[in-house]
Amino acid sequence: MKKGQGLLIHCKDQPGLIAEVTSWIQREGGNVVDLDEHVDPDEGMFFMRLVWQSPAGGGEDLARRFGAEIAEPKEMAWRSFRLEEKQRVALLVSKQGHCLHDILARWQAGELRCEIPLVVSNHESLRPTAERFGLNFHCLSSAEGSKAELEQRQQALLSDYRIDTVVLARYMQILSPDFVAAWENRIINIHHSFLPAFPGARPYHQAHSRGVKLIGATAHYVSDELDAGPIIDQETTRISHRDTARDLVRKGKDLEKVVLSRALRHHLEHQVLSWNNKTVVFD
Amino acid sequence: MKKGQGLLIHCKDQPGLIAEVTSWIQREGGNVVDLDEHVDPDEGMFFMRLVWQSPAGGGEDLARRFGAEIAEPKEMAWRSFRLEEKQRVALLVSKQGHCLHDILARWQAGELRCEIPLVVSNHESLRPTAERFGLNFHCLSSAEGSKAELEQRQQALLSDYRIDTVVLARYMQILSPDFVAAWENRIINIHHSFLPAFPGARPYHQAHSRGVKLIGATAHYVSDELDAGPIIDQETTRISHRDTARDLVRKGKDLEKVVLSRALRHHLEHQVLSWNNKTVVFD
Amino acid sequence: MKKGQGLLIHCKDQPGLIAEVTSWIQREGGNVVDLDEHVDPDEGMFFMRLVWQSPAGGGEDLARRFGAEIAEPKEMAWRSFRLEEKQRVALLVSKQGHCLHDILARWQAGELRCEIPLVVSNHESLRPTAERFGLNFHCLSSAEGSKAELEQRQQALLSDYRIDTVVLARYMQILSPDFVAAWENRIINIHHSFLPAFPGARPYHQAHSRGVKLIGATAHYVSDELDAGPIIDQETTRISHRDTARDLVRKGKDLEKVVLSRALRHHLEHQVLSWNNKTVVFD
Amino acid sequence: MKKGQGLLIHCKDQPGLIAEVTSWIQREGGNVVDLDEHVDPDEGMFFMRLVWQSPAGGGEDLARRFGAEIAEPKEMAWRSFRLEEKQRVALLVSKQGHCLHDILARWQAGELRCEIPLVVSNHESLRPTAERFGLNFHCLSSAEGSKAELEQRQQALLSDYRIDTVVLARYMQILSPDFVAAWENRIINIHHSFLPAFPGARPYHQAHSRGVKLIGATAHYVSDELDAGPIIDQETTRISHRDTARDLVRKGKDLEKVVLSRALRHHLEHQVLSWNNKTVVFD
Repeated sequence: MKKGQGLLIHCKDQPGLIAEVTSWIQREGGNVVDLDEHVDPDEGMFFMRLVWQSPAGGGEDLARRFGAEIAEPKEMAWRSFRLEEKQRVALLVSKQGHCLHDILARWQAGELRCEIPLVVSNHESLRPTAERFGLNFHCLSSAEGSKAELEQRQQALLSDYRIDTVVLARYMQILSPDFVAAWENRIINIHHSFLPAFPGARPYHQAHSRGVKLIGATAHYVSDELDAGPIIDQETTRISHRDTARDLVRKGKDLEKVVLSRALRHHLEHQVLSWNNKTVVFD
Repeated sequence: MKKGQGLLIHCKDQPGLIAEVTSWIQREGGNVVDLDEHVDPDEGMFFMRLVWQSPAGGGEDLARRFGAEIAEPKEMAWRSFRLEEKQRVALLVSKQGHCLHDILARWQAGELRCEIPLVVSNHESLRPTAERFGLNFHCLSSAEGSKAELEQRQQALLSDYRIDTVVLARYMQILSPDFVAAWENRIINIHHSFLPAFPGARPYHQAHSRGVKLIGATAHYVSDELDAGPIIDQETTRISHRDTARDLVRKGKDLEKVVLSRALRHHLEHQVLSWNNKTVVFD
Repeated sequence: MKKGQGLLIHCKDQPGLIAEVTSWIQREGGNVVDLDEHVDPDEGMFFMRLVWQSPAGGGEDLARRFGAEIAEPKEMAWRSFRLEEKQRVALLVSKQGHCLHDILARWQAGELRCEIPLVVSNHESLRPTAERFGLNFHCLSSAEGSKAELEQRQQALLSDYRIDTVVLARYMQILSPDFVAAWENRIINIHHSFLPAFPGARPYHQAHSRGVKLIGATAHYVSDELDAGPIIDQETTRISHRDTARDLVRKGKDLEKVVLSRALRHHLEHQVLSWNNKTVVFD
Repeated sequence: MKKGQGLLIHCKDQPGLIAEVTSWIQREGGNVVDLDEHVDPDEGMFFMRLVWQSPAGGGEDLARRFGAEIAEPKEMAWRSFRLEEKQRVALLVSKQGHCLHDILARWQAGELRCEIPLVVSNHESLRPTAERFGLNFHCLSSAEGSKAELEQRQQALLSDYRIDTVVLARYMQILSPDFVAAWENRIINIHHSFLPAFPGARPYHQAHSRGVKLIGATAHYVSDELDAGPIIDQETTRISHRDTARDLVRKGKDLEKVVLSRALRHHLEHQVLSWNNKTVVFD
């Protein structure tokens, strides 16, 4: 896997931004190995992802210097990352295991740059799967307390396990605004439709009843409004009149797991920049 | 191109339907060359498209006999067709020519089983295109009368030219309920989104503003409710943050023309059966 | 899941075939619930898959009668099946686990109509995965004998476990002609390219070196000639110059597992009819 | 459409390349509006496409200075372009018109940044189409001379019309090595298969006979070896056993025209960089 220091930047577009940043890196003795920039001409916005190799090995001091010398004068929103550092991911699931299986198999095969210390569920059904992979499984059933209490215990778990990113791998509960606010752009959900078509409950049944000829899946960051956060990835597949609603569920699973894993991978590679309820995905 | 007699049937599912129909054809000395059936288990409905070759050459008498001997006793909704008979198609357009060009190029290449005697528009812009292909072009501009008057003149044109099917090839006007009622399941529209997402005006701008990662196009029969009729075909294509709304318009055109032409072709081959605001497409 | 008696038939095309078969079923008191037929006009061949429900519950006697009364007089090649009967499947694997994981997760979720009593490998690496799902895992390493001896032991295992279908889920060995002959149209392989492009070894590296813009995967029945058997399913995905050969391997895995599982499912549903080194897939 | 000066660069990868180039532009008072770079880690090669706006308006002097000050010291292979300058394109066709129609319709709609002064064919069939669009049509039939003589006359035409790029829009002739050498990376061909599968004649019939489940089309620069030049774009579509070879031809046309037009567009936008018989497409 690739290594190096990274920068994710966005700001108002202005002349010379790329030269400013890359010259600074050159002055630090570094070498840019990956640069992807995007200017939104309608919004007048500049977006950039950049990976570079530093002889000094990077570190917080370097990032602080970049902030002071370049980012602040240019009024950039930015964050730095190190590709070698693995994020810590918690998976929230309910009863359906296809997304969980898929993420764990990829993770085991070394495709996902993360640790997965924790699986949380409101059901016991997927405990064996999680434990087979040696993961900690916590069941917080709705029988055990109010929604607020359960969320408090979830938050405590996420904190105990020093979680960076939460993946809702077909977790069928709606998180409270407070929870969502605490994890802005760090909770990834998979919704089983081509949003904005068929938000909410039972999208495959909605799709079947409407008679569409394609079904879809959407991975997005969770925001306050249900199924309306910034979209990271989507995919569709062809269906026909021969497919029952049950067939749509089955065929849709293949979309869901691919789209969710792809979105998670982009997120873990720091390729996703969220702005104005949309994403720039530097893939 | 294929030849033969055809039947499109739907009714409540019941034992022995296929045997009834195919045995009747055999007794008439015919041979089934194509049979496609579908049972919707949830609705308990039976759908069938069948093409057969008759030594007697078919004709209205034969169809009447089928009605009396088979269809009525079984309470079938049905219609018969002859593949050799070309439908007469009118194209309604506004200013954008990509769908018109595409249909005409395919038609000229012999891919569409139809006559196209008539193009109607509310603008003059596509007159040269239509006339290059030797077609009659009528411009009915909104300056020339009320909507009701214009529709009356359109209806007169469709009647004069003995039109069977109307294609809205990016015709940007909404037809009145009376017009629609007179042409049930015989007006095909192309909508430039993946319905039911982004109905109504400027769907590509809606899509851009929502930040979706795929755009789509939908061909459907026109019904009373805007962009809500039975869907015949859909397609999507991948886009990215790099695409402006203008890029979506350009990329979407490739979807629109392919989806509309494909839907028209299915319709002209009598492969589309509309039921309960959905379609069965026997392709 | 669907239930019922099934027939898979192919023969020279001739008038009245559908009527013959469906009338026979009607005389037996049965009801056709699914019928899909195909006539290849160039070859003059007739293909049909039919599922019906019999009040008597089917059985061998019924099949024998169909053979004597219908199939033999019409010189049909045919076989009958019962959807309720699960086939017994053996998975042959090497070191890579993505196809194995995917099949097992689907199987556990009830998507595949089969038993999976046996996993065979030439490496130990996937033993934990197989055993986590409670499967028997046998490692037959090439260190333990000649290829002929190993195949003999494999054959014995397949026989002991009464295996109906063998799936090569990224099994990187070539089977001998004798082995293949014993399992005609019952061994499904996944090849990691869009065949006939890039047969043989290291197809992703071949693809990278040729500079293609799409990569693919192909599921096929194994025949004597390497990677040249009847194709059951294929899929492609878009890549770009940014993808290294390693990226192709990673992206290709998503194709491989989906295509292999889909092909296996078609096979288990008796939807695949192999003829003249091609397949008819009644999906 | 976008405007500005452009640079296409490739060279051995080395530290500081991006900073060198963008700082030079900044010193010239320019502003980078688009930058796309790619490093091939296996080959150690650097590729970049960059568009910038110059207050001085660019011009040859500027390009010369870039060459002397940056490109030569760094041993870059490079070329400069101005997005405002339209290339002059000649279309070579035979009898089939779908690609010609598609390119002309897009060109007329303003989607392609080029002039099209010339259509050359070895048949008269598409003369009416070309002339409808007001284009010069020259028929050079094989009856009128040897292949060498015809190519000489073609070359004269291309020279008279000051052609920059040649598009083989289903031109069914093979060009001589001399012709190809004179137009390196400036002749775009559409081949009607997913190369490297099914090169040469009648690829759809080859595909039908092999029983593939997808067909494809490939746009590539023409090189000495038949159907083996650098691939610019490819696409596939799903087919089934129901499709005859004639259906493949029909369905393939939709791929061919989309892929060819897309490749031509990338070429006209100076987004394609050809190296080592592969392309980098900065889209």
